[in-house]
Amino acid sequence: MNTVKIAQNARNAANKLQYVTTQEKSVALDKIKNILTDKKQDIFKANRQDKENAEKLVNAELLSVSLFKRLDLEKGDKFDTMLKGISDIDQLPDPTGQITYSSKLDEGLELYRVTCPVGVLLVIFEARPEVVVNISALAIKSGNSVILKGGKESAFSLNALSTAIRSALADTVIPSDAIQLVETREEIKSLLDLDEYIDLVIPRGSNSLVKYIQSNTRIPVLGHADGLCSVYVDKDADLDKAVRIVVDSKVNYPAACNSAETLLVNRSILSTHLIPIATALQNANVRLHLDSESLSHLPTPTTNSSLIQECVTEDFDTEFLDLDIAVKVVGNVEEAIQHINSHGSKHTDSIVTENDQVAKRFMQGVDAAGVYWNASTRFADGFRYGFGAEVGVSTNKTHARGPVGLEGLVIYKYKLCGNGHIVGEFGEGSGKKKYLHENVDGTCKTVL
Amino acid sequence: MNTVKIAQNARNAANKLQYVTTQEKSVALDKIKNILTDKKQDIFKANRQDKENAEKLVNAELLSVSLFKRLDLEKGDKFDTMLKGISDIDQLPDPTGQITYSSKLDEGLELYRVTCPVGVLLVIFEARPEVVVNISALAIKSGNSVILKGGKESAFSLNALSTAIRSALADTVIPSDAIQLVETREEIKSLLDLDEYIDLVIPRGSNSLVKYIQSNTRIPVLGHADGLCSVYVDKDADLDKAVRIVVDSKVNYPAACNSAETLLVNRSILSTHLIPIATALQNANVRLHLDSESLSHLPTPTTNSSLIQECVTEDFDTEFLDLDIAVKVVGNVEEAIQHINSHGSKHTDSIVTENDQVAKRFMQGVDAAGVYWNASTRFADGFRYGFGAEVGVSTNKTHARGPVGLEGLVIYKYKLCGNGHIVGEFGEGSGKKKYLHENVDGTCKTVL
Repeated sequence: MNTVKIAQNARNAANKLQYVTTQEKSVALDKIKNILTDKKQDIFKANRQDKENAEKLVNAELLSVSLFKRLDLEKGDKFDTMLKGISDIDQLPDPTGQITYSSKLDEGLELYRVTCPVGVLLVIFEARPEVVVNISALAIKSGNSVILKGGKESAFSLNALSTAIRSALADTVIPSDAIQLVETREEIKSLLDLDEYIDLVIPRGSNSLVKYIQSNTRIPVLGHADGLCSVYVDKDADLDKAVRIVVDSKVNYPAACNSAETLLVNRSILSTHLIPIATALQNANVRLHLDSESLSHLPTPTTNSSLIQECVTEDFDTEFLDLDIAVKVVGNVEEAIQHINSHGSKHTDSIVTENDQVAKRFMQGVDAAGVYWNASTRFADGFRYGFGAEVGVSTNKTHARGPVGLEGLVIYKYKLCGNGHIVGEFGEGSGKKKYLHENVDGTCKTVL
Repeated sequence: MNTVKIAQNARNAANKLQYVTTQEKSVALDKIKNILTDKKQDIFKANRQDKENAEKLVNAELLSVSLFKRLDLEKGDKFDTMLKGISDIDQLPDPTGQITYSSKLDEGLELYRVTCPVGVLLVIFEARPEVVVNISALAIKSGNSVILKGGKESAFSLNALSTAIRSALADTVIPSDAIQLVETREEIKSLLDLDEYIDLVIPRGSNSLVKYIQSNTRIPVLGHADGLCSVYVDKDADLDKAVRIVVDSKVNYPAACNSAETLLVNRSILSTHLIPIATALQNANVRLHLDSESLSHLPTPTTNSSLIQECVTEDFDTEFLDLDIAVKVVGNVEEAIQHINSHGSKHTDSIVTENDQVAKRFMQGVDAAGVYWNASTRFADGFRYGFGAEVGVSTNKTHARGPVGLEGLVIYKYKLCGNGHIVGEFGEGSGKKKYLHENVDGTCKTVL
């Protein structure tokens, strides 16, 4: 199918979704869950085809083992977790239809700001087949239609899953075209031109993917870039907390975007804090890329010398996504803030200190989606934040920032209800009406 | 100055603005108001230079009279209104520092979502000198730094005004570089590349300007495009309300983006409603561009025949911004919604009907920033909505929609306060902690 047709179908589906009730969305989510349960073996069969193809690539060292593992839908309770995710999303409050502002402009003239779906989403994601189910459920719950493009290694799985979802929708008031799959980069390229039909692009993946998309579309982009997170150990840091937080931030899941890539240490605590922190990191097999000052404070390594090396400038702009961390000495919290604002990716940064005024300074000054005090950067996650689900993590400065839940998939419209009101009757001068801007009485109630 | 330096200065100013209190912003706004009062004669002198240059262009028919009028700062109470705008903005609640979400994730681990400035704004606007004062006040109140580019016809006035504002800031904790002026299109072109420093572009002006900017930057754009608004007169419309609303929507200020450009009339009321509405429009000197069906229902004109003509297809995609309106007959509310969603600009559309279920359908189905029931489209305005001030009107589907007040200039960050908390202690299995997601106790209080 050509991409204009795909985009038009998505827009038509989005138009119909404006009228769908919370109850009808719930029915649809339930049907999707049931059909995926029924089709489990077919889906596993498709998943095996993807895995067979991927295995050859892994053997030829053309694909990483970690990517291969992410492909696997049969592993552990992954399939059941995926299904439970649909129920979890169903249980969340409907993000549309919420009144976020109201004002009585005149007798009988009432203004309401009401949340509503964004419209048509284009979501590009990695080769993790369960994401198609997760995003479909989020899109339906928020009343959006979505065009999905997943990593090509998961093509068979995505096809099986989206076919099942579409057939479930065929039996509901929600059009099947609310969920559409595209498979090629050429289709994405051409969809990026269709700002007439598509309202928001959500690329999950590498920084270069996000930058490419931002540079090649007029459609707003919710940037889900990788993360370059830092932990700053202040002069008033508690040593035990510092060790715990630095190690967890780095080691808990090094490939995640909310893992720390940079450690900033206050100069005045080098002799007390640096060695215990460095030792704990080395014990966890982390390679330290140290600036000359921090390096000079570590004893000449006897063991694990491969885990100690002098840093290069680029280390402070590198997302290692592995057991590596860059270490830099700073003089005070201002220098830490300045370093983070220059080198970080506005994702999540943490300060370890017992001084609340220094913590406050850090949390005001650091320009990031998450600013933490005495906590691991790894908490930056929609589930941990209590959103129930996440579309991704945004390092944008507009619309939605940080872990994005259903709220990032809605916008609002202003509903104004009058009784023949015209602007010409308002103004300065005698006989003219003035705007009231009072609490509303409920004139609009029947149409909200 | 080169544009990289300008953008860096703006970023440095934005970093400092993170720490500025509501009280300090208030002092700065007051100083700006005082200095503009003191420099009034100098500003008028600069404004006269602009007007002298513009007058030559008007005489040579290279500039419209309406643009010339907008240039004039000395006219009526324009200067005083501009100053009053500063005080009005000062009186508004500070849009930053508001807590919009909070959750206790664990004992001693509390999450807060707190509003904060977007950062660095780039605002491009028409040749209306007072806008520089208005936007500067909004930027300061919301804690953003701003790079401003106004219409070239107002160059002397803009320079005088921004110089005064910067000198006022020099005497406060807010850096003068919070407000910077650029004067050429080449500078804009080069600033659009600097997504490293600039967070949001707000172009006020023509659709083609907005599209050009959206196509040439990775920076998010808050589109302030022109408006193609419609009024739909339903079969259950009250005739008197229909006449009032159609006339006000078209005639009250035809050059405004919230004026109606299209009139949709239900087929079943052509014989009762069309002639009175058409007559009222003609009496207001409005030229009707009618489809063949509506044309056939009007009597052959005896007078004012120049105000009646058959429409061409493009009329329904044209922003006349003048005393012209396209008229089309539709069979029902669904056809009206479909026409608006295909031809409108997602700005503001109104239905006239006494049937609240039809009104509800229209307000759900029309994809626009404003959906009105029995009210003129001309109400779409930040002052009328009660926002005190507006940056512009957004036809975007993300971040901010409709008239944008201070709220459109802020985003949020997540502040997480712990006590050495790490992710590794949470999870399934025995001995692991579970996330609480309860109401907060106030752990973060000292750092918010």
